[in-house]
Amino acid sequence: MAMDDHLAGGARTARKRKAILDAATTTFLKSGYLGSSVDEIARLADVSKQTIYKQFVSKEALFVAIITGLTTDAGDVVHNAIPELTPGEDLAAYLEDYAFRQLSVVLTPRLMQLRRVVIGEVGRFPELGKALYDGGPRRAMAAMAATIGRVAERGLLKIDDLAAAASHFNWLVMSAPLNQAMMLGDGGIPKPAVLRRHAADAVRVFLAAYASDDLRSR
Amino acid sequence: MAMDDHLAGGARTARKRKAILDAATTTFLKSGYLGSSVDEIARLADVSKQTIYKQFVSKEALFVAIITGLTTDAGDVVHNAIPELTPGEDLAAYLEDYAFRQLSVVLTPRLMQLRRVVIGEVGRFPELGKALYDGGPRRAMAAMAATIGRVAERGLLKIDDLAAAASHFNWLVMSAPLNQAMMLGDGGIPKPAVLRRHAADAVRVFLAAYASDDLRSR
Repeated sequence: MAMDDHLAGGARTARKRKAILDAATTTFLKSGYLGSSVDEIARLADVSKQTIYKQFVSKEALFVAIITGLTTDAGDVVHNAIPELTPGEDLAAYLEDYAFRQLSVVLTPRLMQLRRVVIGEVGRFPELGKALYDGGPRRAMAAMAATIGRVAERGLLKIDDLAAAASHFNWLVMSAPLNQAMMLGDGGIPKPAVLRRHAADAVRVFLAAYASDDLRSR
Repeated sequence: MAMDDHLAGGARTARKRKAILDAATTTFLKSGYLGSSVDEIARLADVSKQTIYKQFVSKEALFVAIITGLTTDAGDVVHNAIPELTPGEDLAAYLEDYAFRQLSVVLTPRLMQLRRVVIGEVGRFPELGKALYDGGPRRAMAAMAATIGRVAERGLLKIDDLAAAASHFNWLVMSAPLNQAMMLGDGGIPKPAVLRRHAADAVRVFLAAYASDDLRSR
Protein backbone atom coordinates (compact mmCIF):
# COMPACT_ATOMS: atom_id res chain seq x y z
CA MET A 1 0.00 0.00 0.00
CA ALA A 2 2.80 2.42 0.95
CA MET A 3 4.34 1.58 -2.42
CA ASP A 4 1.11 2.35 -4.22
CA ASP A 5 0.92 5.76 -2.56
CA HIS A 6 4.12 6.73 -4.29
CA LEU A 7 3.28 5.48 -7.73
CA ALA A 8 0.98 7.27 -10.09
CA GLY A 9 -1.64 5.00 -11.63
CA GLY A 10 0.03 5.19 -15.03
CA ALA A 11 3.40 4.12 -13.72
CA ARG A 12 1.80 1.26 -11.79
CA THR A 13 -0.01 0.09 -14.91
CA ALA A 14 3.21 0.27 -16.92
CA ARG A 15 5.09 -1.67 -14.26
CA LYS A 16 2.44 -4.39 -14.22
CA ARG A 17 2.39 -4.47 -18.01
CA LYS A 18 6.13 -5.06 -18.09
CA ALA A 19 5.87 -7.79 -15.43
CA ILE A 20 3.17 -9.53 -17.49
CA LEU A 21 5.17 -9.28 -20.71
CA ASP A 22 8.33 -10.63 -19.04
CA ALA A 23 6.46 -13.50 -17.39
CA ALA A 24 4.59 -14.36 -20.59
CA THR A 25 7.77 -14.27 -22.69
CA THR A 26 9.49 -16.68 -20.31
CA THR A 27 6.45 -18.96 -20.23
CA PHE A 28 5.69 -19.00 -23.98
CA LEU A 29 9.33 -19.60 -24.94
CA LYS A 30 9.68 -22.38 -22.38
CA SER A 31 6.37 -24.21 -22.74
CA GLY A 32 5.16 -23.17 -26.18
CA TYR A 33 1.93 -21.32 -26.86
CA LEU A 34 -0.58 -24.13 -26.28
CA GLY A 35 1.41 -25.37 -23.29
CA SER A 36 1.21 -21.98 -21.53
CA SER A 37 -1.75 -20.88 -19.44
CA VAL A 38 -2.78 -17.38 -18.43
CA ASP A 39 -3.00 -18.72 -14.85
CA GLU A 40 0.68 -19.63 -14.90
CA ILE A 41 1.64 -16.25 -16.41
CA ALA A 42 -0.44 -14.41 -13.78
CA ARG A 43 1.27 -16.33 -10.98
CA LEU A 44 4.74 -15.64 -12.35
CA ALA A 45 3.96 -11.93 -12.92
CA ASP A 46 2.30 -11.68 -9.49
CA VAL A 47 -0.85 -10.12 -10.93
CA SER A 48 -4.42 -11.36 -11.24
CA LYS A 49 -5.73 -13.06 -14.39
CA GLN A 50 -8.24 -10.20 -14.64
CA THR A 51 -5.37 -7.70 -14.88
CA ILE A 52 -3.90 -9.66 -17.81
CA TYR A 53 -7.21 -9.81 -19.67
CA LYS A 54 -7.87 -6.13 -18.94
CA GLN A 55 -4.51 -5.11 -20.40
CA PHE A 56 -4.19 -7.62 -23.26
CA VAL A 57 -7.72 -8.93 -23.96
CA SER A 58 -6.65 -12.52 -24.76
CA LYS A 59 -3.76 -14.97 -24.57
CA GLU A 60 -3.31 -14.65 -28.34
CA ALA A 61 -3.22 -10.84 -28.19
CA LEU A 62 -0.68 -11.07 -25.37
CA PHE A 63 1.59 -13.25 -27.50
CA VAL A 64 1.14 -10.93 -30.50
CA ALA A 65 2.28 -8.04 -28.25
CA ILE A 66 5.39 -10.04 -27.30
CA ILE A 67 6.19 -10.97 -30.89
CA THR A 68 5.78 -7.37 -32.02
CA GLY A 69 7.88 -6.11 -29.10
CA LEU A 70 10.78 -8.53 -29.58
CA THR A 71 10.95 -8.15 -33.36
CA THR A 72 10.62 -4.37 -33.16
CA ASP A 73 13.43 -4.13 -30.61
CA ALA A 74 15.67 -6.33 -32.76
CA GLY A 75 14.72 -4.46 -35.93
CA ASP A 76 15.48 -1.12 -34.27
CA VAL A 77 19.00 -2.29 -33.45
CA VAL A 78 19.58 -3.49 -37.01
CA HIS A 79 17.89 -0.82 -39.05
CA ASN A 80 17.65 2.44 -37.11
CA ALA A 81 21.33 3.14 -36.72
CA ILE A 82 22.43 2.25 -40.25
CA PRO A 83 25.01 4.87 -41.22
CA GLU A 84 24.91 6.46 -44.65
CA LEU A 85 27.51 5.21 -47.11
CA THR A 86 30.24 7.85 -47.06
CA PRO A 87 31.74 9.05 -50.35
CA GLY A 88 34.58 6.77 -51.37
CA GLU A 89 33.60 4.08 -48.83
CA ASP A 90 33.81 0.52 -50.11
CA LEU A 91 30.26 -0.60 -50.94
CA ALA A 92 30.98 -4.30 -50.37
CA ALA A 93 32.37 -3.60 -46.88
CA TYR A 94 29.37 -1.37 -46.11
CA LEU A 95 26.87 -4.06 -47.16
CA GLU A 96 28.84 -6.75 -45.31
CA ASP A 97 28.56 -4.72 -42.10
CA TYR A 98 24.82 -4.39 -42.65
CA ALA A 99 24.48 -8.10 -43.28
CA PHE A 100 26.62 -9.10 -40.31
CA ARG A 101 24.72 -6.78 -38.00
CA GLN A 102 21.40 -8.30 -39.07
CA LEU A 103 22.74 -11.84 -38.68
CA SER A 104 24.15 -11.10 -35.23
CA VAL A 105 20.96 -9.52 -33.94
CA VAL A 106 18.51 -12.05 -35.38
CA LEU A 107 20.42 -15.28 -34.78
CA THR A 108 20.10 -15.28 -31.00
CA PRO A 109 18.68 -18.25 -29.05
CA ARG A 110 15.80 -16.07 -27.77
CA LEU A 111 14.63 -14.89 -31.20
CA MET A 112 15.16 -18.35 -32.70
CA GLN A 113 13.01 -19.88 -29.94
CA LEU A 114 10.34 -17.27 -30.56
CA ARG A 115 10.41 -18.02 -34.27
CA ARG A 116 10.09 -21.77 -33.70
CA VAL A 117 7.20 -21.43 -31.26
CA VAL A 118 5.32 -19.08 -33.58
CA ILE A 119 5.87 -21.19 -36.71
CA GLY A 120 4.66 -24.25 -34.82
CA GLU A 121 1.34 -22.50 -34.13
CA VAL A 122 0.72 -20.80 -37.49
CA GLY A 123 -1.85 -23.41 -38.53
CA ARG A 124 -4.01 -22.74 -35.47
CA PHE A 125 -3.16 -19.10 -34.72
CA PRO A 126 -2.36 -17.25 -37.95
CA GLU A 127 -2.20 -13.85 -36.23
CA LEU A 128 1.02 -14.94 -34.49
CA GLY A 129 2.77 -15.72 -37.77
CA LYS A 130 1.56 -12.51 -39.33
CA ALA A 131 2.99 -10.47 -36.43
CA LEU A 132 6.32 -12.28 -36.79
CA TYR A 133 6.43 -11.76 -40.55
CA ASP A 134 5.54 -8.06 -40.25
CA GLY A 135 8.05 -7.34 -37.49
CA GLY A 136 10.73 -9.60 -38.98
CA PRO A 137 11.34 -10.17 -42.70
CA ARG A 138 8.80 -7.64 -44.00
CA ARG A 139 10.31 -4.81 -41.99
CA ALA A 140 13.88 -5.95 -42.76
CA MET A 141 13.19 -6.00 -46.49
CA ALA A 142 11.52 -2.58 -46.41
CA ALA A 143 14.48 -1.09 -44.53
CA MET A 144 16.92 -2.77 -46.91
CA ALA A 145 14.99 -1.49 -49.93
CA ALA A 146 15.32 2.06 -48.59
CA THR A 147 19.05 1.64 -47.97
CA ILE A 148 19.95 0.11 -51.33
CA GLY A 149 17.59 2.56 -53.05
CA ARG A 150 19.78 5.40 -51.75
CA VAL A 151 22.92 3.58 -52.91
CA ALA A 152 21.34 3.04 -56.34
CA GLU A 153 20.52 6.75 -56.61
CA ARG A 154 24.22 7.42 -56.27
CA GLY A 155 24.87 5.25 -59.32
CA LEU A 156 26.54 2.31 -57.58
CA LEU A 157 23.78 -0.24 -58.05
CA LYS A 158 21.54 -0.93 -61.03
CA ILE A 159 18.15 -2.03 -59.73
CA ASP A 160 14.92 -2.34 -61.67
CA ASP A 161 12.80 -3.86 -58.90
CA LEU A 162 13.82 -2.56 -55.49
CA ALA A 163 11.59 -4.96 -53.55
CA ALA A 164 12.99 -7.98 -55.42
CA ALA A 165 16.57 -6.81 -54.88
CA ALA A 166 15.94 -6.28 -51.15
CA SER A 167 14.41 -9.75 -50.94
CA HIS A 168 17.46 -11.25 -52.66
CA PHE A 169 19.77 -9.44 -50.28
CA ASN A 170 17.78 -10.41 -47.21
CA TRP A 171 17.53 -14.08 -48.05
CA LEU A 172 21.06 -14.48 -49.42
CA VAL A 173 22.19 -13.19 -46.04
CA MET A 174 19.70 -14.79 -43.68
CA SER A 175 18.53 -18.08 -45.19
CA ALA A 176 21.27 -20.62 -44.78
CA PRO A 177 22.09 -19.87 -41.11
CA LEU A 178 18.46 -19.16 -40.22
CA ASN A 179 17.21 -22.45 -41.61
CA GLN A 180 20.03 -24.29 -39.89
CA ALA A 181 19.09 -22.68 -36.59
CA MET A 182 15.39 -23.41 -37.17
CA MET A 183 15.93 -27.11 -37.78
CA LEU A 184 19.14 -27.94 -35.95
CA GLY A 185 18.39 -25.89 -32.84
CA ASP A 186 20.47 -23.25 -31.11
CA GLY A 187 23.57 -25.40 -31.63
CA GLY A 188 22.99 -24.75 -35.34
CA ILE A 189 23.61 -21.01 -34.93
CA PRO A 190 26.97 -20.38 -36.62
CA LYS A 191 29.81 -18.65 -34.76
CA PRO A 192 30.51 -14.94 -35.50
CA ALA A 193 33.55 -15.66 -37.68
CA VAL A 194 31.47 -18.02 -39.82
CA LEU A 195 28.69 -15.44 -40.07
CA ARG A 196 31.25 -12.82 -41.18
CA ARG A 197 32.44 -15.04 -44.05
CA HIS A 198 28.87 -15.92 -44.91
CA ALA A 199 27.94 -12.22 -45.04
CA ALA A 200 30.88 -11.46 -47.34
CA ASP A 201 29.91 -14.30 -49.64
CA ALA A 202 26.26 -13.21 -49.78
CA VAL A 203 27.31 -9.64 -50.62
CA ARG A 204 29.59 -10.92 -53.40
CA VAL A 205 26.64 -12.73 -55.04
CA PHE A 206 24.36 -9.73 -54.53
CA LEU A 207 26.85 -7.31 -56.11
CA ALA A 208 27.48 -9.68 -59.03
CA ALA A 209 23.78 -9.30 -59.86
CA TYR A 210 23.24 -5.65 -58.96
CA ALA A 211 26.48 -3.65 -59.20
CA SER A 212 26.26 -0.82 -61.74
CA ASP A 213 28.70 -0.63 -64.66
CA ASP A 214 30.14 2.41 -62.92
CA LEU A 215 30.91 0.39 -59.79
CA ARG A 216 32.27 -2.56 -61.81
CA SER A 217 34.69 -0.35 -63.73
CA ARG A 218 36.27 1.08 -60.57
CA MET B 1 -8.67 -64.64 -40.44
CA ALA B 2 -9.41 -65.72 -44.03
CA MET B 3 -7.53 -62.62 -45.08
CA ASP B 4 -4.58 -63.56 -42.89
CA ASP B 5 -4.40 -66.99 -44.50
CA HIS B 6 -3.66 -65.36 -47.81
CA LEU B 7 -1.09 -62.90 -46.58
CA ALA B 8 2.46 -63.85 -45.79
CA GLY B 9 3.65 -62.49 -42.43
CA GLY B 10 5.87 -59.96 -44.20
CA ALA B 11 3.05 -58.55 -46.27
CA ARG B 12 0.83 -58.30 -43.20
CA THR B 13 3.57 -56.49 -41.32
CA ALA B 14 4.09 -54.11 -44.23
CA ARG B 15 0.36 -53.42 -44.46
CA LYS B 16 0.17 -52.65 -40.75
CA ARG B 17 3.25 -50.48 -41.01
CA LYS B 18 1.65 -48.43 -43.76
CA ALA B 19 -1.60 -48.10 -41.78
CA ILE B 20 0.38 -46.84 -38.77
CA LEU B 21 2.38 -44.35 -40.86
CA ASP B 22 -0.77 -43.01 -42.54
CA ALA B 23 -2.62 -42.67 -39.24
CA ALA B 24 0.34 -41.06 -37.51
CA THR B 25 0.90 -38.60 -40.37
CA THR B 26 -2.73 -37.50 -40.22
CA THR B 27 -2.61 -37.20 -36.43
CA PHE B 28 0.74 -35.39 -36.13
CA LEU B 29 -0.10 -32.89 -38.87
CA LYS B 30 -3.53 -32.19 -37.38
CA SER B 31 -2.74 -32.09 -33.66
CA GLY B 32 0.99 -31.41 -33.56
CA TYR B 33 3.54 -33.71 -32.01
CA LEU B 34 2.82 -33.10 -28.31
CA GLY B 35 -0.91 -33.05 -28.98
CA SER B 36 -0.85 -36.53 -30.54
CA SER B 37 -0.97 -39.74 -28.54
CA VAL B 38 0.08 -43.23 -29.55
CA ASP B 39 -3.35 -44.38 -28.30
CA GLU B 40 -5.08 -42.16 -30.82
CA ILE B 41 -2.78 -43.31 -33.65
CA ALA B 42 -3.37 -46.97 -32.73
CA ARG B 43 -7.13 -46.47 -32.80
CA LEU B 44 -7.02 -44.72 -36.18
CA ALA B 45 -4.69 -47.37 -37.66
CA ASP B 46 -6.76 -50.18 -36.14
CA VAL B 47 -3.73 -51.81 -34.54
CA SER B 48 -2.65 -52.24 -30.93
CA LYS B 49 -0.29 -49.85 -29.17
CA GLN B 50 2.09 -52.78 -28.76
CA THR B 51 2.26 -53.20 -32.54
CA ILE B 52 3.28 -49.56 -32.90
CA TYR B 53 5.99 -49.79 -30.26
CA LYS B 54 7.21 -53.09 -31.74
CA GLN B 55 7.57 -51.59 -35.20
CA PHE B 56 8.71 -48.05 -34.32
CA VAL B 57 10.07 -48.22 -30.73
CA SER B 58 8.80 -44.77 -29.68
CA LYS B 59 6.51 -41.91 -30.66
CA GLU B 60 9.57 -39.83 -31.55
CA ALA B 61 11.04 -42.59 -33.75
CA LEU B 62 7.65 -42.93 -35.45
CA PHE B 63 7.63 -39.23 -36.29
CA VAL B 64 11.24 -39.39 -37.50
CA ALA B 65 10.20 -42.23 -39.85
CA ILE B 66 7.39 -40.04 -41.20
CA ILE B 67 9.64 -37.01 -41.67
CA THR B 68 12.25 -39.11 -43.45
CA GLY B 69 9.58 -40.77 -45.61
CA LEU B 70 7.85 -37.56 -46.70
CA THR B 71 11.06 -35.64 -47.39
CA THR B 72 12.63 -38.59 -49.22
CA ASP B 73 9.55 -38.99 -51.45
CA ALA B 74 9.55 -35.28 -52.25
CA GLY B 75 13.31 -35.24 -52.81
CA ASP B 76 13.06 -38.22 -55.16
CA VAL B 77 10.56 -36.37 -57.33
CA VAL B 78 12.75 -33.28 -57.45
CA HIS B 79 16.21 -34.74 -57.76
CA ASN B 80 16.08 -38.26 -59.20
CA ALA B 81 14.65 -37.42 -62.58
CA ILE B 82 16.75 -34.33 -63.31
CA PRO B 83 17.70 -34.57 -66.99
CA GLU B 84 21.24 -33.82 -68.11
CA LEU B 85 21.75 -30.46 -69.78
CA THR B 86 21.79 -31.22 -73.50
CA PRO B 87 24.45 -29.61 -75.70
CA GLY B 88 23.23 -26.22 -76.86
CA GLU B 89 20.38 -26.13 -74.32
CA ASP B 90 19.85 -22.78 -72.61
CA LEU B 91 21.41 -23.01 -69.14
CA ALA B 92 19.10 -20.41 -67.60
CA ALA B 93 16.01 -22.27 -68.82
CA TYR B 94 17.46 -25.55 -67.53
CA LEU B 95 18.11 -24.11 -64.06
CA GLU B 96 14.71 -22.41 -64.02
CA ASP B 97 13.03 -25.76 -64.64
CA TYR B 98 15.04 -27.26 -61.79
CA ALA B 99 14.11 -24.40 -59.47
CA PHE B 100 10.44 -24.46 -60.42
CA ARG B 101 10.25 -28.20 -59.94
CA GLN B 102 11.74 -27.93 -56.45
CA LEU B 103 9.41 -25.05 -55.53
CA SER B 104 6.35 -26.92 -56.80
CA VAL B 105 7.17 -30.12 -54.93
CA VAL B 106 8.20 -28.54 -51.62
CA LEU B 107 5.62 -25.77 -51.33
CA THR B 108 2.62 -28.00 -50.72
CA PRO B 109 0.31 -27.59 -47.71
CA ARG B 110 1.27 -31.06 -46.46
CA LEU B 111 5.03 -30.48 -46.46
CA MET B 112 4.59 -26.96 -45.09
CA GLN B 113 2.49 -28.32 -42.22
CA LEU B 114 5.12 -30.97 -41.53
CA ARG B 115 7.82 -28.32 -41.50
CA ARG B 116 5.89 -26.10 -39.09
CA VAL B 117 5.12 -28.92 -36.67
CA VAL B 118 8.74 -30.09 -36.67
CA ILE B 119 10.22 -26.62 -36.22
CA GLY B 120 7.83 -26.01 -33.32
CA GLU B 121 9.26 -29.04 -31.52
CA VAL B 122 12.99 -28.64 -32.27
CA GLY B 123 13.71 -27.27 -28.78
CA ARG B 124 12.28 -30.38 -27.09
CA PHE B 125 12.91 -33.04 -29.76
CA PRO B 126 16.03 -32.20 -31.76
CA GLU B 127 15.99 -35.52 -33.65
CA LEU B 128 12.88 -34.35 -35.52
CA GLY B 129 14.59 -31.22 -36.83
CA LYS B 130 17.70 -33.16 -37.79
CA ALA B 131 15.62 -35.63 -39.83
CA LEU B 132 13.89 -32.73 -41.59
CA TYR B 133 17.16 -30.96 -42.31
CA ASP B 134 18.82 -34.12 -43.62
CA GLY B 135 15.90 -35.14 -45.84
CA GLY B 136 15.15 -31.57 -46.93
CA PRO B 137 17.75 -28.82 -47.45
CA ARG B 138 20.84 -30.97 -46.89
CA ARG B 139 19.82 -33.47 -49.55
CA ALA B 140 18.61 -30.72 -51.91
CA MET B 141 21.92 -28.88 -51.65
CA ALA B 142 23.95 -32.06 -52.18
CA ALA B 143 21.90 -32.92 -55.29
CA MET B 144 22.22 -29.36 -56.57
CA ALA B 145 25.98 -29.40 -55.98
CA ALA B 146 26.26 -32.54 -58.12
CA THR B 147 24.14 -31.01 -60.89
CA ILE B 148 25.93 -27.67 -61.08
CA GLY B 149 29.27 -29.44 -60.68
CA ARG B 150 28.57 -31.27 -63.95
CA VAL B 151 27.57 -28.00 -65.62
CA ALA B 152 30.76 -26.36 -64.33
CA GLU B 153 32.86 -29.19 -65.76
CA ARG B 154 31.45 -28.29 -69.16
CA GLY B 155 32.82 -24.78 -68.74
CA LEU B 156 29.52 -22.96 -68.32
CA LEU B 157 29.86 -22.05 -64.64
CA LYS B 158 32.87 -20.82 -62.70
CA ILE B 159 32.62 -22.19 -59.17
CA ASP B 160 35.30 -22.26 -56.49
CA ASP B 161 33.19 -23.62 -53.65
CA LEU B 162 30.55 -26.02 -54.93
CA ALA B 163 28.78 -26.33 -51.57
CA ALA B 164 28.51 -22.56 -51.18
CA ALA B 165 27.21 -22.18 -54.75
CA ALA B 166 24.60 -24.91 -54.18
CA SER B 167 23.54 -23.21 -50.95
CA HIS B 168 23.17 -19.88 -52.78
CA PHE B 169 21.09 -21.53 -55.49
CA ASN B 170 18.91 -23.41 -53.02
CA TRP B 171 18.14 -20.42 -50.83
CA LEU B 172 17.77 -17.87 -53.64
CA VAL B 173 15.10 -20.21 -55.00
CA MET B 174 13.43 -21.44 -51.83
CA SER B 175 13.71 -18.74 -49.16
CA ALA B 176 11.27 -16.00 -49.96
CA PRO B 177 8.26 -18.24 -50.72
CA LEU B 178 9.20 -20.78 -48.04
CA ASN B 179 9.42 -18.18 -45.29
CA GLN B 180 6.15 -16.64 -46.42
CA ALA B 181 4.48 -20.03 -46.25
CA MET B 182 6.05 -20.75 -42.84
CA MET B 183 4.77 -17.55 -41.28
CA LEU B 184 1.70 -16.63 -43.29
CA GLY B 185 0.29 -20.15 -43.54
CA ASP B 186 -0.80 -22.11 -46.58
CA GLY B 187 -2.45 -18.99 -47.97
CA GLY B 188 1.10 -17.62 -48.20
CA ILE B 189 2.11 -20.26 -50.78
CA PRO B 190 2.48 -18.34 -54.04
CA LYS B 191 0.61 -19.42 -57.18
CA PRO B 192 2.54 -21.36 -59.89
CA ALA B 193 2.88 -18.34 -62.20
CA VAL B 194 4.41 -16.33 -59.36
CA LEU B 195 6.77 -19.20 -58.54
CA ARG B 196 7.83 -19.35 -62.22
CA ARG B 197 8.79 -15.68 -62.21
CA HIS B 198 10.49 -16.07 -58.85
CA ALA B 199 12.51 -19.03 -60.18
CA ALA B 200 13.61 -17.04 -63.24
CA ASP B 201 14.67 -14.13 -61.05
CA ALA B 202 16.63 -16.38 -58.68
CA VAL B 203 18.44 -18.00 -61.61
CA ARG B 204 19.31 -14.59 -63.02
CA VAL B 205 21.02 -13.62 -59.73
CA PHE B 206 22.73 -17.01 -59.50
CA LEU B 207 24.11 -16.79 -63.04
CA ALA B 208 25.29 -13.21 -62.49
CA ALA B 209 27.52 -14.58 -59.73
CA TYR B 210 28.53 -17.91 -61.25
CA ALA B 211 28.36 -17.84 -65.07
CA SER B 212 31.74 -18.51 -66.69
CA ASP B 213 33.27 -15.99 -69.07
CA ASP B 214 32.61 -18.50 -71.80
CA LEU B 215 28.86 -18.49 -71.03
CA ARG B 216 28.77 -14.69 -70.66
CA SER B 217 30.35 -14.16 -74.07
CA ARG B 218 27.77 -16.26 -75.91
